[in-house]
Amino acid sequence: MITGSSNPKIKQIVQWQNKAKERRSAGIFLVEGFKMFEEAPEGWIRESYLSEDAWEKVCSVPGLKDKLVRTGFETVSREVFRKMSDTQTPQGILCVLERPGYGLEELLAVPKPLFIVLENLQDPGNLGTIVRTGEGAGVTGIIMGAGTADIYNPKTIRATMGSVFRVPFVYAENLGDVIERLRESGVTIYAAHLAGKKYYDSFPFQEGTAFLIGNEGMGLSRELAARADSWLKIPMEGHVESLNAAVTASILMYEVHRQRR
Amino acid sequence: MITGSSNPKIKQIVQWQNKAKERRSAGIFLVEGFKMFEEAPEGWIRESYLSEDAWEKVCSVPGLKDKLVRTGFETVSREVFRKMSDTQTPQGILCVLERPGYGLEELLAVPKPLFIVLENLQDPGNLGTIVRTGEGAGVTGIIMGAGTADIYNPKTIRATMGSVFRVPFVYAENLGDVIERLRESGVTIYAAHLAGKKYYDSFPFQEGTAFLIGNEGMGLSRELAARADSWLKIPMEGHVESLNAAVTASILMYEVHRQRR
Repeated sequence: MITGSSNPKIKQIVQWQNKAKERRSAGIFLVEGFKMFEEAPEGWIRESYLSEDAWEKVCSVPGLKDKLVRTGFETVSREVFRKMSDTQTPQGILCVLERPGYGLEELLAVPKPLFIVLENLQDPGNLGTIVRTGEGAGVTGIIMGAGTADIYNPKTIRATMGSVFRVPFVYAENLGDVIERLRESGVTIYAAHLAGKKYYDSFPFQEGTAFLIGNEGMGLSRELAARADSWLKIPMEGHVESLNAAVTASILMYEVHRQRR
Repeated sequence: MITGSSNPKIKQIVQWQNKAKERRSAGIFLVEGFKMFEEAPEGWIRESYLSEDAWEKVCSVPGLKDKLVRTGFETVSREVFRKMSDTQTPQGILCVLERPGYGLEELLAVPKPLFIVLENLQDPGNLGTIVRTGEGAGVTGIIMGAGTADIYNPKTIRATMGSVFRVPFVYAENLGDVIERLRESGVTIYAAHLAGKKYYDSFPFQEGTAFLIGNEGMGLSRELAARADSWLKIPMEGHVESLNAAVTASILMYEVHRQRR
């Protein structure tokens, strides 16, 4: 059992919790909690750490115990676990996972794909919620511009509720190029835009569809919006100027689901 | 200009920022930022505080200056303002507002009303997002059970983006009684429930409609769900067990808007 937080493995975890750059250069991300461990693909698990007081819980769930034994783990003291954890009330299990590598081309091979393209989305919670709702609505993949929040941010991971293991995603250096590639493949590009003239539900989404969603405060950049085939808007009563970005994405994705059902 | 944070008015504001109980017993809530000040109904404004370095901004917007002069304000030093503020990067304006008093009966007088009924919704951000989307979708009112987050929490207020000034809301001691009162008035009660058998968009929402939305982790209580006329569900692909509560409410409210358009 690891009881000292000066242990090099523990120091490494703490560094990874706090530094996105270090996580990126190591090609890993961290997840916490039993639900996340249960849903994590086995092939992604590099290391797992169990708090001494989480043993009872583990032993009471056979599937959990078997998976831990198969993938390997180390036990750490309660104090050490608290240092490693990013949460207020840690559940007592933390894993280091390999980052998946999805490619745009494999996503384009899906018939009638549905993409969400995010430009400069800042809030980790919004990003996680979009991934979660995206899985529910059957999205093919999430494409993120370089300015979008880190999908491996612990807050984002938590907000995905496990969907981060199942929804493919790609970071793109240049979203303009991605849009051209999508269009070449027959995907129609819609910008969710306050200046859109037609309501979102007046478009047919039976074929390949991509929605461009912009920054929480600023919306889409003029450059990216100009590359869309159509602008659409969500009707708004009262004095509402815009909807939350995750809400916008959710309403659009579920309209696609409704039409395709 | 107030330059000392031991000033009794400043001490009072700091206490209100941190203590929901104190805000409640004083019958007030706090808002920050220029957008919120601009949108705040004049009759609600009790006191306003302006940071010394926000003067330039105020003078450059005539409407802002006039409203401040009409409703009255005090200038405080930069340091004092930072102490009063709940935000990381304060904009330099903070107001104490009177709480509105909405009644269920006045909301029921609206023809074909649309209600969101929240049971034990915990997350202030989710609550604020529901109020914001609610205004956009044309909700008649938000009804909250005693266990729901505080709508006057600074995080909730921020997430409403000003909709808290325009969307009526009511806290109810007993949600069961409220549901019976809604039904008496001809409103149909739908529970958003994972065990629902029919999809949300297969119901007609032309007449008075209320959606019951439960706690983020636990959903609706068995007791409350049993009081609904129908259970509906949002279809979910993949391994998604549920959607975020604000996303669920948003999809349902916009389905009503779509059908009623």
